[in-house]
Amino acid sequence: MPFSPAFDKASLHAAYAGGFTPAQMVEEVFSRLEAVGDPGIFITLADKQALLAEAQALGSFDPVEKPLWGLPFAVKDNIDVAGLPTTAACPDFTTVPAKDATVVRLLKAAGALVIGKTNLDQFATGLVGVRSPYPVPRNALYPHLVPGGSSSGSAVAVAQGLVTFALGTDTAGSGRIPAGLNNIVGLKPSVGALSTAGVLPACRTLDCVSVFALSAGDAFAVFDSAARADAQDAYSRSLPQRPAMVKPPVLTIGVPAKADQEFYGDLAMQESYEQSLARLESMGHRIVELPFQGFFEVAQLLYEGAWVAERYQAVRGFFDEKPESFHPVTRAIYAGAKTLSAADAFAGFYRLQALKQALQPLIASVDLIVVPTAPTHYTLKDLEAEPIAANSRLGTYTNFVNLLDLCGIAVPTGARADGLPASLTLLAPFGKDGLAAALGDELHRATSDKLGATGWPLPEPAPAAAVADAEMLPIVVVGAHLSGMPLNKQLTDLNARFLRAGKTAPAYTLHALANQTPAKPGLVYVGAESGKGAAIDIEIWQLTPDNFARFVNMIPPPMCIGTLRLDDGTEAKGFLVEPAALENAIDITEFGGWRAWMGKASQG
Amino acid sequence: MPFSPAFDKASLHAAYAGGFTPAQMVEEVFSRLEAVGDPGIFITLADKQALLAEAQALGSFDPVEKPLWGLPFAVKDNIDVAGLPTTAACPDFTTVPAKDATVVRLLKAAGALVIGKTNLDQFATGLVGVRSPYPVPRNALYPHLVPGGSSSGSAVAVAQGLVTFALGTDTAGSGRIPAGLNNIVGLKPSVGALSTAGVLPACRTLDCVSVFALSAGDAFAVFDSAARADAQDAYSRSLPQRPAMVKPPVLTIGVPAKADQEFYGDLAMQESYEQSLARLESMGHRIVELPFQGFFEVAQLLYEGAWVAERYQAVRGFFDEKPESFHPVTRAIYAGAKTLSAADAFAGFYRLQALKQALQPLIASVDLIVVPTAPTHYTLKDLEAEPIAANSRLGTYTNFVNLLDLCGIAVPTGARADGLPASLTLLAPFGKDGLAAALGDELHRATSDKLGATGWPLPEPAPAAAVADAEMLPIVVVGAHLSGMPLNKQLTDLNARFLRAGKTAPAYTLHALANQTPAKPGLVYVGAESGKGAAIDIEIWQLTPDNFARFVNMIPPPMCIGTLRLDDGTEAKGFLVEPAALENAIDITEFGGWRAWMGKASQG
Repeated sequence: MPFSPAFDKASLHAAYAGGFTPAQMVEEVFSRLEAVGDPGIFITLADKQALLAEAQALGSFDPVEKPLWGLPFAVKDNIDVAGLPTTAACPDFTTVPAKDATVVRLLKAAGALVIGKTNLDQFATGLVGVRSPYPVPRNALYPHLVPGGSSSGSAVAVAQGLVTFALGTDTAGSGRIPAGLNNIVGLKPSVGALSTAGVLPACRTLDCVSVFALSAGDAFAVFDSAARADAQDAYSRSLPQRPAMVKPPVLTIGVPAKADQEFYGDLAMQESYEQSLARLESMGHRIVELPFQGFFEVAQLLYEGAWVAERYQAVRGFFDEKPESFHPVTRAIYAGAKTLSAADAFAGFYRLQALKQALQPLIASVDLIVVPTAPTHYTLKDLEAEPIAANSRLGTYTNFVNLLDLCGIAVPTGARADGLPASLTLLAPFGKDGLAAALGDELHRATSDKLGATGWPLPEPAPAAAVADAEMLPIVVVGAHLSGMPLNKQLTDLNARFLRAGKTAPAYTLHALANQTPAKPGLVYVGAESGKGAAIDIEIWQLTPDNFARFVNMIPPPMCIGTLRLDDGTEAKGFLVEPAALENAIDITEFGGWRAWMGKASQG
Repeated sequence: MPFSPAFDKASLHAAYAGGFTPAQMVEEVFSRLEAVGDPGIFITLADKQALLAEAQALGSFDPVEKPLWGLPFAVKDNIDVAGLPTTAACPDFTTVPAKDATVVRLLKAAGALVIGKTNLDQFATGLVGVRSPYPVPRNALYPHLVPGGSSSGSAVAVAQGLVTFALGTDTAGSGRIPAGLNNIVGLKPSVGALSTAGVLPACRTLDCVSVFALSAGDAFAVFDSAARADAQDAYSRSLPQRPAMVKPPVLTIGVPAKADQEFYGDLAMQESYEQSLARLESMGHRIVELPFQGFFEVAQLLYEGAWVAERYQAVRGFFDEKPESFHPVTRAIYAGAKTLSAADAFAGFYRLQALKQALQPLIASVDLIVVPTAPTHYTLKDLEAEPIAANSRLGTYTNFVNLLDLCGIAVPTGARADGLPASLTLLAPFGKDGLAAALGDELHRATSDKLGATGWPLPEPAPAAAVADAEMLPIVVVGAHLSGMPLNKQLTDLNARFLRAGKTAPAYTLHALANQTPAKPGLVYVGAESGKGAAIDIEIWQLTPDNFARFVNMIPPPMCIGTLRLDDGTEAKGFLVEPAALENAIDITEFGGWRAWMGKASQG
């Protein structure tokens, strides 16, 4: 029996490190496709021979240079992949793009391979995943349930273990609902963080490219490779800083107030949700109830307000000419959008702005907001009975998110009492994608065992190298601010967090300064090539920018803050000294650090 | 003959300090009103007895507690003043509000007194100032010229010396054009800085309450009392910090490229404009030509794109019911707006977003942008011939400003060769109102003598107590971060505010470092007692703690931040250098500063 690795990133990379090849991976994908036997997942598959050639072209395994080396991925069929048709699940609309969408180009550059284009609710309008003229993708766990949409094919492809990750799009919840219904992770980035150049718009002002994966860590790795500002996308935005998947040990988590919770009578979903919140609390986080009616009002604006006109505008010429090419439900929605006036649109913007202003203090009062991903499950039969109502109920906890400029991640929270999959979505303000992913991962690990519809276990988290908090600034201390030394309290009073101990590059001399109270050393860069320097013991602490500024302003002459070269090749801001202070100082470089010198000195 | 003080703030406050009373001020206002004899300025005057009672209630002169103590002001008649009718120059639309608009409430609280409500282009739609069923306000200097609008009455009231300041509104240029045509200052704040609660909207997403005054300092004082975030206005925004009217000595000023300049054949205006730019250059500022077609394209969107639908939406019910109540030109505009679709609106937003993205690097490449306020003057007769075309030409340099989220100030630049008033508008990014006002004041003083249509001279500037903002942290720069130098942009990008120029204590040597790009000096403390040091030229800038931390983290080796001793005996954090960098450096202490050395160096 041939070796068949799990396709989560860690397992597949471990397989590659052990001799498995991308060509074998491609064969494996096609054999799994056959085994799964769901013709609704992909609208177009990549040519196998071309894929094998791409796999060949990757060269030797190099996950440092190419973090997504050899990972197979699927692309929702409203996102361009050069040479493959883009249908948006509307055959008459098909074009064959010559260029990759920006995100696809970036992911290919990071080493990932496109397996094919996936099915969706036509023009990404829907949350059910079945509004398509192609065969409907089957829910990966329970085929009688709707798969969720609009990115149904992408989510099912991941849940079935056919690919390591898949791209979706998310305007109303299309990147979260199908993740929730298929027991996988759906990362919905901050609005504008991933370029939408080469993506057929639904609502251009709100659209996000989203990532489906088996774990939060895998989704975040894809996000990290794809989140780049793009001059080709007028709505592209730069993140305040490169996000890292880290979180403080204790978080304040807002949840919908009891009275505002809505599960449409699904008690199993409600029970599972309450258990997950209890789990978050047991991890040490603080749960705070928020009045949620304002969020629901925002949600209603998305389909009842101005924004639905963006969907019409995106395909205006085509719709006016060939309305019969549209799925009947989609056609009805677009026809309604066409009649809205510009004044109506502004009325909607004004209402949103007022709600935003009112909700801002609530959102700012917590670190994250946690909601059920979907309030309930629907069967394909339910949907036939009420195609619009079921769809709109699925969006209860998703529709408001992009309008309020939040990022989010849907993570599995194990099975409900009846065995059906449960999922929570963690929401955070623009740019806090890493925080949401970090808490999502913690929750996923605490509640789940098997990934998607596969039997694969959650891989161990990547070794938690004391990662610097992306929002905090490191400061390297060398002398009186070291832990246990007299000025260390200045750091702890400013809530500084210890990051690690280490050494400078072997390029510094250290001097015990004269006339300093308390005693202090001065660190001087002399260059490695001088032969005079040594690697000096340091500690790295972290401060919030505010406290960093306060700390720097506290430092008296002759100390100053400059750039230190560390022994791991990185640089960080830390203590140096003015040249004049070296007069009458004692060169203590040979001791290798202030603590060693002080130990010696105190022994007399 | 009774004492008749000038009504600029300094003169009127000096009069109050000398025994003049607010009651006398009220009498004076009414006697001037009669002398001016223009029935078009005010639509409604405050009741004189009520005003005298308010004046009485002010108590004793206290310009510290109430910075606008006893200053008379006029309010455009689309802004609510409790108890006075708001007509928006449409009699059928009249309401009598029970509450002051937020800005009016704040200004009254600061001690100012409302004299009356002023005439305007109906519903603030127009730049000519004559689209009103009331008598048309006369241009204060040349009655055959249009007064400019839409805030015509407010501008003329200030120019005639009837009030110290007046409120206007500015969506397309209504706070700048009439200032330019009446030889006064028009401050158009950052979008959202002044609350629009209690203001009848034109375009709610763009509307600004603006300030007319005789000097930039007076306008800024009003702005400073009125700029407060307001929960009553969904579009209200907090400024990044409390703005101060200060500027660095050297600024980079963008101007429309020669080929893009448009004066519609008015050579006198063009000549005056060029003289003003030369004046700015002679003050030491750097003028940079910017391609301007993109700005003009944005300008066109304002009346040809989606935003005109906001005007209709603001009075939708009334317009649908009583179109005959509208001025014929206004009615035609609103009728057109009514037919725009929501999809059209989004098409406009997409176009604006693309233009914004394209223009962003241009705007970021300069400190301010300077344009003619109006490209030419029109007579009332011209306007009869072409009421729409003349109006739209007046907006050539104003219509794009709010769409691009710029703040601005129009300042007089003296008389043109033919005696007609000339004016420039200084534009800057959101939150830089103080920078624009400071440069505006410098330019106004350099080019003008008499204020408005009065014979009053420009009062001395308030002693420029370069006050350090307690919430900001000073940083002393010595080299490439000085104003006009290559790295100054790092400071301005972080909203740094220039505090003052100065010198270090006479205890430092300065060195031109080897191998630095851009060229940089290193400052070294040698002590006054060494006899080797000099007082070195510095600039002090201020940053918020957050941005201070970002700035420090940006500094590459060998530069560092330590404590500098200044010539006034104080200390502040600023640039120093690691000792190793002094190797191969040139001692340039004798030049006394980096700017002097660079000047010498560039002369060879």
